[in-house]
Amino acid sequence: MHTYIGLDFGTDSVRAILVDASGALLSSSVAAYSRWGDGRYCAPADGQFRQHPRDYLEALERVLRTLLDGQDRSSVAAIALDTTGSTPCPTDADGTPLALLPGFEDDPDAMFCLWKDHTAVDEAARLNAVAAEWSEGDFRRFEGGIYSCEWFWSKLLHALRRNPRVRAAAAGWTEHCDWMTGVLAGRTAPTSLPRSRCAAGHKAMWAAEWGGLPSQEFLHAVDPLLDGWRDRLYRDTATADRPVGTIALEWAQKLGLPATVVIGGSALDCHFGAVGAGIRPGLLVKVIGTSTCDLLVAPRLDRCIRGICGQVDGSILPGLIGLEAGQSAFGDVYAWFQRLLGWAGDASLQRLEAEAAAIPPGANGVTALDWFNGRRSPDENPALTGTIAGLRLGTTAPMLYRALVEATACGARAIIDRFAEEGIPVRAVAAVGGISRKSPLVMQTLADTLAVPIQVAASDQACALGAAMVAATAAGDFPTLPDAQQRLAAGFDRVFTPRPELADAYRAIYQRYQSLARTITR
Amino acid sequence: MHTYIGLDFGTDSVRAILVDASGALLSSSVAAYSRWGDGRYCAPADGQFRQHPRDYLEALERVLRTLLDGQDRSSVAAIALDTTGSTPCPTDADGTPLALLPGFEDDPDAMFCLWKDHTAVDEAARLNAVAAEWSEGDFRRFEGGIYSCEWFWSKLLHALRRNPRVRAAAAGWTEHCDWMTGVLAGRTAPTSLPRSRCAAGHKAMWAAEWGGLPSQEFLHAVDPLLDGWRDRLYRDTATADRPVGTIALEWAQKLGLPATVVIGGSALDCHFGAVGAGIRPGLLVKVIGTSTCDLLVAPRLDRCIRGICGQVDGSILPGLIGLEAGQSAFGDVYAWFQRLLGWAGDASLQRLEAEAAAIPPGANGVTALDWFNGRRSPDENPALTGTIAGLRLGTTAPMLYRALVEATACGARAIIDRFAEEGIPVRAVAAVGGISRKSPLVMQTLADTLAVPIQVAASDQACALGAAMVAATAAGDFPTLPDAQQRLAAGFDRVFTPRPELADAYRAIYQRYQSLARTITR
Repeated sequence: MHTYIGLDFGTDSVRAILVDASGALLSSSVAAYSRWGDGRYCAPADGQFRQHPRDYLEALERVLRTLLDGQDRSSVAAIALDTTGSTPCPTDADGTPLALLPGFEDDPDAMFCLWKDHTAVDEAARLNAVAAEWSEGDFRRFEGGIYSCEWFWSKLLHALRRNPRVRAAAAGWTEHCDWMTGVLAGRTAPTSLPRSRCAAGHKAMWAAEWGGLPSQEFLHAVDPLLDGWRDRLYRDTATADRPVGTIALEWAQKLGLPATVVIGGSALDCHFGAVGAGIRPGLLVKVIGTSTCDLLVAPRLDRCIRGICGQVDGSILPGLIGLEAGQSAFGDVYAWFQRLLGWAGDASLQRLEAEAAAIPPGANGVTALDWFNGRRSPDENPALTGTIAGLRLGTTAPMLYRALVEATACGARAIIDRFAEEGIPVRAVAAVGGISRKSPLVMQTLADTLAVPIQVAASDQACALGAAMVAATAAGDFPTLPDAQQRLAAGFDRVFTPRPELADAYRAIYQRYQSLARTITR
Repeated sequence: MHTYIGLDFGTDSVRAILVDASGALLSSSVAAYSRWGDGRYCAPADGQFRQHPRDYLEALERVLRTLLDGQDRSSVAAIALDTTGSTPCPTDADGTPLALLPGFEDDPDAMFCLWKDHTAVDEAARLNAVAAEWSEGDFRRFEGGIYSCEWFWSKLLHALRRNPRVRAAAAGWTEHCDWMTGVLAGRTAPTSLPRSRCAAGHKAMWAAEWGGLPSQEFLHAVDPLLDGWRDRLYRDTATADRPVGTIALEWAQKLGLPATVVIGGSALDCHFGAVGAGIRPGLLVKVIGTSTCDLLVAPRLDRCIRGICGQVDGSILPGLIGLEAGQSAFGDVYAWFQRLLGWAGDASLQRLEAEAAAIPPGANGVTALDWFNGRRSPDENPALTGTIAGLRLGTTAPMLYRALVEATACGARAIIDRFAEEGIPVRAVAAVGGISRKSPLVMQTLADTLAVPIQVAASDQACALGAAMVAATAAGDFPTLPDAQQRLAAGFDRVFTPRPELADAYRAIYQRYQSLARTITR
């Protein structure tokens, strides 16, 4: 029986799974990024988060060796992967990240600029200003109408403006998912393989409607430093279910895999997570980690949705519009609080959670806004910050933790409300990711706040599972991706149902959240 | 040479000093309240803070025994004391606090209702509503125009409304400072000694202009439960420099003191602190502890100052108007944060302070409002709460601590600005209290924010020293209280001067504070 490898490059580590054509999980493994783990190349207070390509290469080799240890390698039919994004990196003409070249090894601007890096705020503002006035039409219209500092062009321009050495050396620019796929397929040169439809469409303003990336005239108007970059990048993209090639000889030998292993297309992690969680029209898949990615699919839309992160044909399932929204910080908010408390000693999240669960909804009057990393959706605004109001001398750490949990749930509600206002009702929610399996308080609060049931994906590795489904489809073992979804599904193992007796309490909390949000933003 | 005892009943303990007529400090001692230390009778999350009269009696005996140990008792000429306030308590017809009677020993409503208790919010609202419409004139006009839930009538009414047993048993109601003075003088019955001008004028709407307490018609309009209470309380008050009697036989014997020891009048703690710190026109004395009390004296005023806590003839120095304002939480804000961090482990204030001092002014964009216990001045509003804005994932505990220090300094600035707007300029500030001697970061931030030099009182016990000055005057050893102030002064031992190079930075911080305050309150 054929087996498939799904790889999921997350923020801190890469996870891998090996599944067979019946959906059985044969093996799984994780490998952390070592330089990242040491905090190198980052300046959190300045919003700078960079990752070294060597971290990825080393972790890729480690994770696959562990995954395949003791497994039948000859039955492996395909590999597909996802990564975080937009996580772009400058490359030379061969598509090699600059940080792998002599002289650039320690330059953060020559590395991958992690999704949550917020150093390109000025560049995003410039892009938005020019795009808003552009007479040919707004290139941001399939990306929610606001271009983020977390995205491809903002980061590319920031590096060009800030770093003359990188500017001189960069012949191309790649997304993490594209480069990684190219590494496995042995072809990283810019023109040698189609880019990920998902990454290009959601993060780089690529659209079939205007034949690819935004026009050179537009890019020039943003900054003449962008001259020539449209041609230097790419025109073609492909949905992930299409094979991009077979495994590079080097990697096949290194791992003892057959030379016939198909390399599938790639996407941003949460999109494959949505695939792995069984996304279909009407089911919102919420991939909950340090931040969230909220995904929907819908038949062709006749208009652009306001204030979300994007709507791209085929970015999740071929033939359907993939809609993406998200919260800039979710687990990161809890981690922040844990870090804050951790300054003094041991801040056990488990104990916090247990004590917070004993506090009634409303956190004794404390209301928080979850914008500790800016706001992604609805209506992206990286300048917004976290706020906590209603603090009293009697406010305890568990009350504050509860308020933060409620804040993140309210942030999630604001996104669903926006989809509903735009005519895309959410009938059910599936949750994916560590927090959805580890924190019953967070999930129950989310269900109560959203007022819809939340199914928790049974797989610990929904993104990697989605990647395996994509790999299986790319290998030709299933006629369509939904067929692979059905056959390889891991299902759900827990449902959180809104408690009717607390509906009023949670409505009141959401009203307080909205009221504070209006107060702070007006 | 005569010696004098000054007693200062603070929030957690009573402090005592023994000074001689040359100003030399001969002895000092402290005794904590034991039930209070165990957290009994309090519900911090509900704003309930009560103290048992036995705590005071036991601590009084302990502190005086320790103070006098090895001292020449025969030279003691007088004792005076201050307490926190408004800290009222229901009594029987003999002036004995109900909690000392059988059946009431454990009833929090039969105890002293500590200044910072916030359970009487509804009653304060009712008092304010009726007072605002009262055709005879506004009884609140010498108390800043807003009657606080922390004050005498609010608390009295709250206990009457809430507790039928207390309502049936209460024949009188006393302030902590009046009762304590009565205990030492052996006369606690309601009519047996004049009440403290300071406590009555600042907290109970007593004024010579209307012949005492507010009219019975007014009290009835607030709530018929108040019928009869004007007559049952008192009409006469006296400034603290007047003797109220000599020591009760019981206490003289217990302590080995001469029967001739004069008992001076009493006041609220911070008022004696201002006396001890050498208050004079133009010098604001800021008594900084868990909360602050900000005091000024001024010649007779032709109008009422908006939004402060009171203006009372002779409440600080006889013949001058005593003006009081304050911040509801100051040290309490730092203690809150320490408690919050302490949930996780050891939250050393010293380490916090050291790390926060290394952060530039502005706390990396974090702005806080210091209203964790409501706002006292300017414009009292107990419903306001603490707010922290500008939080980011990179915000650390020391940054947050620094933001809280800046917030309390800005709260202090708002008070000085109000005095200036009302035509009472502050030319210098003297600081009294633990924090002013322990935290250079807080004091330097205060000086930079207020943009005036701050002298720190040399005495650790400015309030008790003020009480000793009052005792010496009451004993007739000095013609006036200012004479005693001059002779017994402990002076200042440190000055914090605003740093001109940081003036712009601190102005910007104060603007951010005001802007957030406007945003949150509008």
